[in-house]
Amino acid sequence: MDKIKVGILGSTGSVGQRYVNMLRDHPWFEVVALSASEASVGKKYRDAAKWILDTGMPEGMAEMEIVGADPSEIKRSGADVVFSALPSDVAKRVEMEMAEAGLGVIADTSAHRMDPDVPLVIPEVNFGHLAAAKAQKEKRGGFIVTGPNCTTIGLAISLKPIQTEFGIRRVLVSTMQALSGAGFFGVPSMAILDNLIPYIRNEEEKVASELLKILGDFKDGAFEDARIRVGASCHRVCVLDGHTEAVFLETEKAASPDEVARCMAEFSSDAQRMRLPSAPDRPIIVRNEPDRPQPRLDRLSGSPDRAKGMATVVGRIRKESALDNGIKYVLLSHNTIRGAAGNAILIAECLKAKGVI
Amino acid sequence: MDKIKVGILGSTGSVGQRYVNMLRDHPWFEVVALSASEASVGKKYRDAAKWILDTGMPEGMAEMEIVGADPSEIKRSGADVVFSALPSDVAKRVEMEMAEAGLGVIADTSAHRMDPDVPLVIPEVNFGHLAAAKAQKEKRGGFIVTGPNCTTIGLAISLKPIQTEFGIRRVLVSTMQALSGAGFFGVPSMAILDNLIPYIRNEEEKVASELLKILGDFKDGAFEDARIRVGASCHRVCVLDGHTEAVFLETEKAASPDEVARCMAEFSSDAQRMRLPSAPDRPIIVRNEPDRPQPRLDRLSGSPDRAKGMATVVGRIRKESALDNGIKYVLLSHNTIRGAAGNAILIAECLKAKGVI
Amino acid sequence: MDKIKVGILGSTGSVGQRYVNMLRDHPWFEVVALSASEASVGKKYRDAAKWILDTGMPEGMAEMEIVGADPSEIKRSGADVVFSALPSDVAKRVEMEMAEAGLGVIADTSAHRMDPDVPLVIPEVNFGHLAAAKAQKEKRGGFIVTGPNCTTIGLAISLKPIQTEFGIRRVLVSTMQALSGAGFFGVPSMAILDNLIPYIRNEEEKVASELLKILGDFKDGAFEDARIRVGASCHRVCVLDGHTEAVFLETEKAASPDEVARCMAEFSSDAQRMRLPSAPDRPIIVRNEPDRPQPRLDRLSGSPDRAKGMATVVGRIRKESALDNGIKYVLLSHNTIRGAAGNAILIAECLKAKGVI
Amino acid sequence: MDKIKVGILGSTGSVGQRYVNMLRDHPWFEVVALSASEASVGKKYRDAAKWILDTGMPEGMAEMEIVGADPSEIKRSGADVVFSALPSDVAKRVEMEMAEAGLGVIADTSAHRMDPDVPLVIPEVNFGHLAAAKAQKEKRGGFIVTGPNCTTIGLAISLKPIQTEFGIRRVLVSTMQALSGAGFFGVPSMAILDNLIPYIRNEEEKVASELLKILGDFKDGAFEDARIRVGASCHRVCVLDGHTEAVFLETEKAASPDEVARCMAEFSSDAQRMRLPSAPDRPIIVRNEPDRPQPRLDRLSGSPDRAKGMATVVGRIRKESALDNGIKYVLLSHNTIRGAAGNAILIAECLKAKGVI
Repeated sequence: MDKIKVGILGSTGSVGQRYVNMLRDHPWFEVVALSASEASVGKKYRDAAKWILDTGMPEGMAEMEIVGADPSEIKRSGADVVFSALPSDVAKRVEMEMAEAGLGVIADTSAHRMDPDVPLVIPEVNFGHLAAAKAQKEKRGGFIVTGPNCTTIGLAISLKPIQTEFGIRRVLVSTMQALSGAGFFGVPSMAILDNLIPYIRNEEEKVASELLKILGDFKDGAFEDARIRVGASCHRVCVLDGHTEAVFLETEKAASPDEVARCMAEFSSDAQRMRLPSAPDRPIIVRNEPDRPQPRLDRLSGSPDRAKGMATVVGRIRKESALDNGIKYVLLSHNTIRGAAGNAILIAECLKAKGVI
Repeated sequence: MDKIKVGILGSTGSVGQRYVNMLRDHPWFEVVALSASEASVGKKYRDAAKWILDTGMPEGMAEMEIVGADPSEIKRSGADVVFSALPSDVAKRVEMEMAEAGLGVIADTSAHRMDPDVPLVIPEVNFGHLAAAKAQKEKRGGFIVTGPNCTTIGLAISLKPIQTEFGIRRVLVSTMQALSGAGFFGVPSMAILDNLIPYIRNEEEKVASELLKILGDFKDGAFEDARIRVGASCHRVCVLDGHTEAVFLETEKAASPDEVARCMAEFSSDAQRMRLPSAPDRPIIVRNEPDRPQPRLDRLSGSPDRAKGMATVVGRIRKESALDNGIKYVLLSHNTIRGAAGNAILIAECLKAKGVI
Repeated sequence: MDKIKVGILGSTGSVGQRYVNMLRDHPWFEVVALSASEASVGKKYRDAAKWILDTGMPEGMAEMEIVGADPSEIKRSGADVVFSALPSDVAKRVEMEMAEAGLGVIADTSAHRMDPDVPLVIPEVNFGHLAAAKAQKEKRGGFIVTGPNCTTIGLAISLKPIQTEFGIRRVLVSTMQALSGAGFFGVPSMAILDNLIPYIRNEEEKVASELLKILGDFKDGAFEDARIRVGASCHRVCVLDGHTEAVFLETEKAASPDEVARCMAEFSSDAQRMRLPSAPDRPIIVRNEPDRPQPRLDRLSGSPDRAKGMATVVGRIRKESALDNGIKYVLLSHNTIRGAAGNAILIAECLKAKGVI
Repeated sequence: MDKIKVGILGSTGSVGQRYVNMLRDHPWFEVVALSASEASVGKKYRDAAKWILDTGMPEGMAEMEIVGADPSEIKRSGADVVFSALPSDVAKRVEMEMAEAGLGVIADTSAHRMDPDVPLVIPEVNFGHLAAAKAQKEKRGGFIVTGPNCTTIGLAISLKPIQTEFGIRRVLVSTMQALSGAGFFGVPSMAILDNLIPYIRNEEEKVASELLKILGDFKDGAFEDARIRVGASCHRVCVLDGHTEAVFLETEKAASPDEVARCMAEFSSDAQRMRLPSAPDRPIIVRNEPDRPQPRLDRLSGSPDRAKGMATVVGRIRKESALDNGIKYVLLSHNTIRGAAGNAILIAECLKAKGVI
């Protein structure tokens, strides 16, 4: 099989590096273009990126020359699809230019997530929304597909089987988010050591609006929000990777903690059935120890090897008596793998499996 | 005025050290007995305690000789009142022995908090419950008064003015608790660095039951729980001191964030009006910055100097649309000052002001 | 006594905030000008500075209006002396402009430290070098006096009594430096959590050259370096404040660890004898515990209250058999108090006591 | 090839878990006995060990039943060789009992390191010392071979090529050691967060004495110390894994930093030539960036996969003018992989390759 040629926009940043790392030796995709800001264009990736992962920079990509975030340069490289990890100030414009130039854009930026014709996708949750990509393709030549905010993603995965089996009326979530979510330079050490910051700009709003789009329907070419009341309180804690979330929820139909645990543990999707390369064997891993999940111990959960960090880990599922049909649990999701690059790559694998790319 | 002679049980541990530190040069109390476990008896405090505060051990107490946790030894020292920071395995027995020997016991341990004749007190919140101490005194000779768990205390203070003005139906709280809450040796560094632990044994149960007793009534010699639905999810994060709590609540009467902020900022109590030495000028400090309170910056809030760490700091008061009459906010409370030693000392000051001791 | 009017250049940064904090209610100095970069000019200090200390911004200064780093603006405020915490790119030019406009400049920046007519001063160590300020005054109208790098300062203080009593041939120092030394935004949390960085730009060179100037002579109007061989290896560790240094040295005359400890503990200077307000009772505190000094426990050492963080704490003084007349020890010095603002203020107090300002 | 059957003594602790992890699917060894303290005997490994690695417990070993640290139990399992990660209070006795019962003991404990007939081995450095194991075998039936302290090991590896090519007169080392070196419960979080501890009991003495034995000779059945002057200052910092060491040294023959870098980079040994499974391709990796090695980024250096964490990473090689023929550099070595379990396994691979086991 010929590999699909892909580019990475914003390839030198912390999410960009995750893409580079996860696409090394990918069975279906071959990276042919690494793009970054003007100042880096023409440099070798080795010199342009200050590599921060503990795995070492992939040899092949280290020698590639950075190209500009310009559709013509990307197309000259032979790429048909680009993964976008662009900074938010340029993402809106550049992603649309790419799509209008006929490229497929898979973005984990927020720029186009809420656009009415752009699907916001977690393959295990709302695979079907990808149909909107085809409609775009007819209109634009290319298309934009987005993945959600790193905080929304584990939450949506954990809620999906509950929604399907019991219905959900209300969700309250309090997050403890990792530093890498703010980018390598996002949180000064002086700001967070022996401390936490109980605020992340726009995060609570994103969690609410994105969750409703993802758990909602795509019917007659339009997205319709799920009817769930959602509230969030978002906090940054001194953890490198892995967002932890304390979830309180009210189901439509009463469900015991054991029933919830079972439906989560049994949850699966087409991504699993088609054995997509980056799909974890199980989207949700339920742990029974009283003190799990923990970010450092559980954030790289998920097998096979290529899917490490792709599973959502849930623990402490228990009754919440302060709510009717109340359930509470704690979840953990790797914010730069499943919460960003990994989800986008899994989307690309879906699109490939469905013949869209 | 003659100072009241007091003893400290469990004086060498981390909360014990807070007592020693906060009682240095106290205008009303004089420490005459430092008690610790058998192995330390007879040693100087200087040698028995591995001092962990950055303020230096008070010179006067450094030379005091440790005595056993025995009523007769305490009474021989001349103390009439003891503060208990005993480990939970011995607290139940020893505190009762002390009370039955005629001593006044002020405990921030959990041993007797839920006893039907023992008040559980935060001076600004339920001052009136101290009446139960008098009843005990008639029965036992001495008495036990307790302060709540370090997680309950800031929560109860922040809720009290809302309860009074708007009524409360439902409270959900997700905590991010400091390491010192588990004692100096409680959390290994290998367990918490680049990590968090989403579990604290019995903590969620304590928060719920204690809160209802504190916000409830004391009528005809009996405690009656408040009628509020309470749920908690408790987590340990990598912060030295200061518990942060994300609170979601449903009021009886609708209240805007501004109204909630105002009633918190204006909240005051007899402890303030009587200018008790360790009472903060304001029990609740409301901050308007979007990213406060933060543990390292705000945990020592409270004036005058003796009341540093005694105020509850609240921020991010906002509407919660996922609840009817929903409000959410973030609070911070110093867990070993207001959450333990400081609250107990303030109780003692109340008892003195009311003539109970 | 009329207070001397002073200004602070670079008042909004992390060292600038230390100045603001240490000069609140200073008995000899009154802050009349707070200067910062162009973008802040005209704003209130409250709005221009993102306050990072846990003590709260001094009320009086919060309302002051920021002025530009221009001699005429500073002089209009009535200030005769300025403390400079300017960023290094502008310090060289601005400090000289100020001096040439007749102002006294006390700088803890590196810009002019090695100038041949500028003294580099630690009051307890080389008080006498201040004579160079007078010579400058005649030449320039104003003058520049500098304090050393935060890493040099504790080292120089600890070495001075050994140099005086035993002579020093060789010093090797390996540092473990705090985050605040790089400024609030200097070290990203992603760079240092569960990590250390074994490199600080130019630091090793500064330690060597500054130490020799400070421990050297000022004779016939010229500075002459001490004849000591100095080598350093500098490392950043995950500590908020307080530089720790492991020192290996070779004395001229053999000295036992006890003799070294004694001469350090007895060390004193004119700054102590004149009871300057910010002078610690003892410049060096020798601790005997095997595991001290530790940054969090010892960095605020020093009394009286105004001198907290001004003492150098030394421990683990022991023989080093790999060197002839070998001694090794560990020292701790607060890098933004004694290592920056506090040292500069103590210099100003010296200048005042000597009648230079 | 039949695999050699091995046991692990102290298998539930943090180093024990590293053995279990590194021996999963080992091509030459098969774990047949997991031993732990009395309280765990009879339990499944899954229940006896609180697993702290982020890789998950190897399925096969999870179900094994813990046996006692008794030679007869070990032999009943079929094991011929045991790896010892015993706590120091029992190591001395138990390891000798095992050897006298005819077992081969490979220990990274300190109990027998300095015994006159026990080799202290780093395969790349003093392979030849293993000859002492044969002599022991004749005397005792079994034998004890030891690996050095985690701090000595990276230092010795980095020094070996310099010793060979230029000779070494003097070494001074200042360490910044990881938390895991003290065991999972060794350092309370309250003791080390925003702090460091400038003391590790007996560590400085061990580094000096072990280094001399390792870099010394084994002649006529006796060990002879290298003639090098060695001094150390040891410090614990807030890093999970990976000891960093700042080394100052004086060579016999003058050597430029480039020459030192070259001889380190080219260094190899029989362990590499024989392609032992856990031998890194290069014992020393020299990095040229100014700010490396860093523990989090470099501690897992070494390839192939089985040798991750086995290489010593060296950087910042530069001239030290305070010493004659002075050189300084910074090294990093993974303290629980190369510094403990990994070194012991590599020793076992050597013994197997040489036919001793």
